[in-house]
Amino acid sequence: MENKQTIVVIGGVAAGASAAAKARREDERATILVYEKGKYVSFANCGLPYYVGNEIMQERALLLHTPDSLKTRFNLDVFVEHEVLEIKPEEHQVVVKNLQAGETFTQSYDKVILATGTKPIVPNIDGIHSRNVHLLRTVPDAVQIKQQIEAGNVKKAVVVGGGFIGLEAVENLHRQGVSVTLIEKADQVMTPFDREMVVDLEDMLQKLRVEVILNNGITKFVAQGDRAEAVQLEDGTVIHADMFLLSIGVRPDVTLAEKAGIELGATRAIAVNGRMETSIPDIYAAGDAVEIHHRVSGKSAWIPLAGPANKQGRVAGANAVGRSMEFKGAYGTSIVRVGNVVAAKTGLSEKECIREGMDYRVTYNYHGNHAAYYPGSEGMMIKLIAEQQTGRILGAQIVGGAGVDKRIDVLATAIYGHMTVEDLEHLDLAYAPPFGAAKDPIIMAGMTHANLYRAEGNAYTPAQVAEQMEKKDIQIVDVRNEDEWAVGMIPGAIGIPLPMLRARLNELDPAKETVVYCRSGQRSYFASRILMQNGFQNLKNLMGGYLGWTLFQKSLKES
Amino acid sequence: MENKQTIVVIGGVAAGASAAAKARREDERATILVYEKGKYVSFANCGLPYYVGNEIMQERALLLHTPDSLKTRFNLDVFVEHEVLEIKPEEHQVVVKNLQAGETFTQSYDKVILATGTKPIVPNIDGIHSRNVHLLRTVPDAVQIKQQIEAGNVKKAVVVGGGFIGLEAVENLHRQGVSVTLIEKADQVMTPFDREMVVDLEDMLQKLRVEVILNNGITKFVAQGDRAEAVQLEDGTVIHADMFLLSIGVRPDVTLAEKAGIELGATRAIAVNGRMETSIPDIYAAGDAVEIHHRVSGKSAWIPLAGPANKQGRVAGANAVGRSMEFKGAYGTSIVRVGNVVAAKTGLSEKECIREGMDYRVTYNYHGNHAAYYPGSEGMMIKLIAEQQTGRILGAQIVGGAGVDKRIDVLATAIYGHMTVEDLEHLDLAYAPPFGAAKDPIIMAGMTHANLYRAEGNAYTPAQVAEQMEKKDIQIVDVRNEDEWAVGMIPGAIGIPLPMLRARLNELDPAKETVVYCRSGQRSYFASRILMQNGFQNLKNLMGGYLGWTLFQKSLKES
Repeated sequence: MENKQTIVVIGGVAAGASAAAKARREDERATILVYEKGKYVSFANCGLPYYVGNEIMQERALLLHTPDSLKTRFNLDVFVEHEVLEIKPEEHQVVVKNLQAGETFTQSYDKVILATGTKPIVPNIDGIHSRNVHLLRTVPDAVQIKQQIEAGNVKKAVVVGGGFIGLEAVENLHRQGVSVTLIEKADQVMTPFDREMVVDLEDMLQKLRVEVILNNGITKFVAQGDRAEAVQLEDGTVIHADMFLLSIGVRPDVTLAEKAGIELGATRAIAVNGRMETSIPDIYAAGDAVEIHHRVSGKSAWIPLAGPANKQGRVAGANAVGRSMEFKGAYGTSIVRVGNVVAAKTGLSEKECIREGMDYRVTYNYHGNHAAYYPGSEGMMIKLIAEQQTGRILGAQIVGGAGVDKRIDVLATAIYGHMTVEDLEHLDLAYAPPFGAAKDPIIMAGMTHANLYRAEGNAYTPAQVAEQMEKKDIQIVDVRNEDEWAVGMIPGAIGIPLPMLRARLNELDPAKETVVYCRSGQRSYFASRILMQNGFQNLKNLMGGYLGWTLFQKSLKES
Repeated sequence: MENKQTIVVIGGVAAGASAAAKARREDERATILVYEKGKYVSFANCGLPYYVGNEIMQERALLLHTPDSLKTRFNLDVFVEHEVLEIKPEEHQVVVKNLQAGETFTQSYDKVILATGTKPIVPNIDGIHSRNVHLLRTVPDAVQIKQQIEAGNVKKAVVVGGGFIGLEAVENLHRQGVSVTLIEKADQVMTPFDREMVVDLEDMLQKLRVEVILNNGITKFVAQGDRAEAVQLEDGTVIHADMFLLSIGVRPDVTLAEKAGIELGATRAIAVNGRMETSIPDIYAAGDAVEIHHRVSGKSAWIPLAGPANKQGRVAGANAVGRSMEFKGAYGTSIVRVGNVVAAKTGLSEKECIREGMDYRVTYNYHGNHAAYYPGSEGMMIKLIAEQQTGRILGAQIVGGAGVDKRIDVLATAIYGHMTVEDLEHLDLAYAPPFGAAKDPIIMAGMTHANLYRAEGNAYTPAQVAEQMEKKDIQIVDVRNEDEWAVGMIPGAIGIPLPMLRARLNELDPAKETVVYCRSGQRSYFASRILMQNGFQNLKNLMGGYLGWTLFQKSLKES
């Protein structure tokens, strides 16, 4: 180990702070300098919306560390309001500007770790720089927004962009009694998710009396002096509000990297290898500014999330001081909550599978988070996507309430382990009535999918049923009980409750293509087994049942 | 597929009901006969304690199926109060007694599936057959107990045996306002767990004002007529009560199997292969009566739990009608809740590792279930056990509150996938402030363990520290902040808060063996990195920190 090497870390939040701390643990003697452009280091950026909503009461709860605490605990020299203007790889120097003093100086380095994160997308339109058009990226942003709310100046707010931050902001503004309109340019909120898996989130927003406007971008702010009074949308609509929050999205901040001649990847984020090394020797990069190896697709991907950023920082920090660690890739596991609806995702979505040209199979399963006979069970819909030929799990999305977070993490672990849908059938998961079921939703999802994979049954997604309904003569059988038909049926379906199916087989034509459905897919699977063994050859089970059909119909209507 | 074969299923609860239903799904034409000795089939035996405590209000919620519903849904012929007296493999017949009519008849079979479950351990002691000495294994047991309580006849109850059912019974009796004494012959409740991991459960029982008596068996009941008035313990103590509940344990019910000449395994449960075939052709077995392949130890094990039972039933049912499925083994994942304390386990415990002669390493980690800056975080202690040489995860135990169930299922999934502690470091788990942390407790546990595995640090368990304290001159350093010392320190420890460690190195002797600890193990790991790089060669981090030390001390005191 070299003694007294100088490590310069550019950026002091998630990846940067992790990198610096890890470098120190590995090398007690190195000089470790952290330059952060903003006023704060190592703050909880994921907590900002909750601070706005007063779920997190104290500003100081967001500050995980200060320059002082990083000095005493890790012996790091942290400089806030210091912007690195340039990296000079040949000279092994960085040019730094002290933003408070206005002075510029040069600092030599042995290694640099770039953790520059992202920059917000701020369209160049009229009025966008008004003082009541906010971002929610820093502690001062959050403090300013909360002060405005608590001063009683915000009756009505417009949030632009329905991603993680946008939705969390909407929920927390609502918590503060603010009337909110959400504007999203895409045809759905949470665009990393498939359309039908966010319908429940959108319904929840409506229940919270949030106005959700999809398929509409913003064209300008109508400002009076330095204050925006309204925002105008692409379709001409004008929405008045007291406050506007931009959460349109972010881009990797690669300004410094490009200037230094560091190669970018296909996603225009900084290209790195598993050791987090860039194309230039002695320069590492980590966090939201880099592109990573997607563990499922095997391709480069840009996944700006806190979990991978921290892990990458740790790897970069260790390697910068001469250790050897490797980042094993990420696969986009994420979760969001609005009201009591939780939506989570891991691996590839269906639209990503289509984009990547993958040969995949989808199943839907609806089950309670714990044994139905124990009170308080909450349902969840699991969309499970696996490779057609091998059964390898490619991705999953879950929407529901309690227990969604558990199931997505189990699936994320299974994906890490390259498991197949058949492996899910065999997982030995913890069961007691308050926590799960003897057949956990994960195991049920595995069974459903594995049945198809082993060609024990055939199934259609709701979209496929709709397609077949238009194209040709199919026979749709609803095997729910009669009292369940009141909530609605698929148009043209023949109702035969499962218990009567054997006795009423003569009402159906075995020669026709037949789709069977129930509420969530379990009884219809039983029904399809009965029909198959009674000569119905062209037989499909509707995955996700009537619940899935409803989601699909709503996703059509709303988009 | 053979048509019109006859499948006889012996036992109609978890494994038996699963087997029969799966057989039907695979073979629409077979005759499927289910004989159940008791009055009910397919009932929620795991729900019985919660019915007693009125968390589950209605008896009918426990009845997942009736013979009628199994007939209409699955076309199964289910006979309750029918006891199979004998299997005649040569004749392919079973001898069945109709317990209500008192008649005995013979039934031919093509295949038999044995799902006879367990029998309770009921010691042959005075007064044990008194009418207020209960088991809690069937719906009538639960109904009787609840009726007695609700009639106001039960002020005081004694529960004998502190396993799953015992603890759940204690909690639910307490919920009903009954004063409870728990008697356990071992030196801890929940004997599958390691001693120190159940201390919080025992503390919770005390908070509920449950009297817990360990290291004491029962010798007789003091009865007056058909009513027990008291139970006498091995040490002579006599405890009076209105009701006594036996949950001492169970044994596999192998009476029928032995009589038929079916081979038992090392655990004295029925030996089966992965297809759930017994040693006699055309006889399958599944559920709590069989021994299974332990996926971690690779040896035979008897794990009577609902999850594996259901999976085995499904495999046996499919194979009995000519399909080919395999049970992939279990590894003892389980969970129990008392008050707001949750304890969960997967894979091998430390005592099982010792028993199996495995070369293992243990770490403890204490972390919140979600980001500390988001309100309501609850702590959990994770004990992670891995193979010394390979880092392969052998087992884990977690005790805490919210989120324990999630982490045990993630670890159970990792164990299924033969993952190592280094894999845990890289899992891409879902993070938003209400659900987890950028570094989830699982990832932190993985990092701690992997650091040791890669020999980046050394650590002692609390037991090892205690051992070293007795044997020789060691230097113990407490790096918590001064205000944390008030809750207690390890005797003889030198207090130097982490921020001051670099400045006060001269107070320590680098030549001595040095143990560093903090609250939970994170700051002490940082401290040990500082010390190591300052010439301290013989250095250990106390795993689990002062929290772990406290658990260990309590486990010594109580046992």
